[in-house]
Amino acid sequence: MERKKLYNVAVVGVTGAVGQKMLETLEKRNFPVGELRPLASARSAGQRVNFKGNTYTVQEATPESFEGIDFALFSAGGSISEKLAPAAVERGAVVIDNTSAFRMLPEVPLVVPEVNAHTISQHSGIIANPNCSTIQMVVALKPIYDAYGIDRIVVSTYQAVSGSGQAAIDELREQTRAVLNGEPANPQILPVKSLPKHHQIAFNAIPQIDVFEENGFSREEMKMVNETRKIFADDSIQITPTCVRIPVFFGHSEAVYVETRKPFDLAEVRSLLESAPGVKVVDDLEEQAYPLATEAAGQYDTFVGRIRRDLFHPRGLNLWIVSDNVLKGAALNAVQIAEHMVKSK
Amino acid sequence: MERKKLYNVAVVGVTGAVGQKMLETLEKRNFPVGELRPLASARSAGQRVNFKGNTYTVQEATPESFEGIDFALFSAGGSISEKLAPAAVERGAVVIDNTSAFRMLPEVPLVVPEVNAHTISQHSGIIANPNCSTIQMVVALKPIYDAYGIDRIVVSTYQAVSGSGQAAIDELREQTRAVLNGEPANPQILPVKSLPKHHQIAFNAIPQIDVFEENGFSREEMKMVNETRKIFADDSIQITPTCVRIPVFFGHSEAVYVETRKPFDLAEVRSLLESAPGVKVVDDLEEQAYPLATEAAGQYDTFVGRIRRDLFHPRGLNLWIVSDNVLKGAALNAVQIAEHMVKSK
Repeated sequence: MERKKLYNVAVVGVTGAVGQKMLETLEKRNFPVGELRPLASARSAGQRVNFKGNTYTVQEATPESFEGIDFALFSAGGSISEKLAPAAVERGAVVIDNTSAFRMLPEVPLVVPEVNAHTISQHSGIIANPNCSTIQMVVALKPIYDAYGIDRIVVSTYQAVSGSGQAAIDELREQTRAVLNGEPANPQILPVKSLPKHHQIAFNAIPQIDVFEENGFSREEMKMVNETRKIFADDSIQITPTCVRIPVFFGHSEAVYVETRKPFDLAEVRSLLESAPGVKVVDDLEEQAYPLATEAAGQYDTFVGRIRRDLFHPRGLNLWIVSDNVLKGAALNAVQIAEHMVKSK
Repeated sequence: MERKKLYNVAVVGVTGAVGQKMLETLEKRNFPVGELRPLASARSAGQRVNFKGNTYTVQEATPESFEGIDFALFSAGGSISEKLAPAAVERGAVVIDNTSAFRMLPEVPLVVPEVNAHTISQHSGIIANPNCSTIQMVVALKPIYDAYGIDRIVVSTYQAVSGSGQAAIDELREQTRAVLNGEPANPQILPVKSLPKHHQIAFNAIPQIDVFEENGFSREEMKMVNETRKIFADDSIQITPTCVRIPVFFGHSEAVYVETRKPFDLAEVRSLLESAPGVKVVDDLEEQAYPLATEAAGQYDTFVGRIRRDLFHPRGLNLWIVSDNVLKGAALNAVQIAEHMVKSK
């Protein structure tokens, strides 16, 4: 009997919302982990995490932390990735990076396995995990792109606070409680912790995710534009995003209008979506069935519903796309990339 | 000194969320009310309401309730309007109806005073108040329509629960409290009370407002299509709406993508919006200033921000439009229509 090969895995930012889900996902999907090395910033070092029934003490991530590591999953902010990912690569690890630090570098594959797994092999040490709002959109659009091509996308997002990490989750909970009790909301984290102003997220909708660029779009919106084009390897797709934070804990929802290149048949679109990997169609209007963030939370799939032909544009298609932003939008996608690499080894 | 003419006003559905705001708005704007007649269904008759320091007992609305009434503001559901509005008109009242019962009838003006006040005089007894999500969009788009024309609109809404009435407001409050306490959400009202299924609104986004039509769009979405075209008296405008309920108490937000007919200058768009009646521009990205539902709540204006040129389409314009759905979206708009009629008498 052949012994299954095991891989040493480091998780950087293991105490964060995404890091925690990375551990859970590695365990649930039975990834062949040899040694697990849970890493974080000095501030979080010393905390305990659980994996497969064992308790681990979190170590401070340093260049030396990556000795003997096969896969290093990074989710501790862009500056940590910039500092430590090269050190991990030097020591022979493959870095799967969940931050935006390397995503747009030409030599770094930006990978959603259901869409462009074939680019994984082109890596030179670092593979980037796309932004959460991009991942779920491209998973759902992949079969449509393949069948008809895509000219343009107008997308409005309804994004969960977990995209901003554990502190934002805590803020929504505490702020909601305060507002219900007639106390001041006292916003301190959202929309962007490092910026001077903070806005109430409880019972509100904030049209800012990440900082704004000169062109009036937010960085989150520009990620949806640039990453979608890179993942489809098609710079002719025109994308108009509006990214909005709403008071939801887990699960991003997206209202997506698509113009295909070639004419489509609506029944065929539905059937393509139904057989697409990673996609689950929830679309029965008589039963009031459509994707909901609360039901997508904790699930691996990207859920698609409200599939309808535009009223006016002959190649216009409308979709409602929902997925767990911390799982498919981050932790799961990273683990899937590692799984692909293990499979092809 | 001339004595100011006074008008007898009936408010039908006065105990509801919109009815209450109609009373408040009549009082705050000092509408020249002679006699106030607060009316409701038999179920709500006997309740007390306050107006200008006096307490009134709510009467059951019957055909006879409208004797001697000048303005009858209806907001008690479509079937009540269908039954009683003709009786009110017969007795000489002008009906300003907040339901969808008469909106699309050719002989009924559908009025947003900032946009098409000139159609008020064409009424034959009934004037319709448009749907809340339509009103705020057309107020903001009016100066753009006038200057450049509009070819198409793609709009995604972020709608407050108050659009479904007081019971939905109570449901969001109680459900949120339950979820925070780890208790079952127990949805009973949203998305549509009369339908068999109900979904959790607390910490969720529900892509259903009103029932679905055969074409896959919800009735709320079709209202945005049909009413916008009627208000602008322009059936060439192509509109793609996705209407979504989110856990906000007051204030609808809308991500609106517009394609103008003629090319536009962005600075001019901003200046047109700044001088448009009923519009307030809140758009300073450096200061993180953009419209927010929590700040629009209780205000009369329609707030516009995130004004930005599309990245790809030369005539593409993006806006974030927020207004108090119960005020400008309902009660205030109805009172403004009455004010226009008083002024032109």
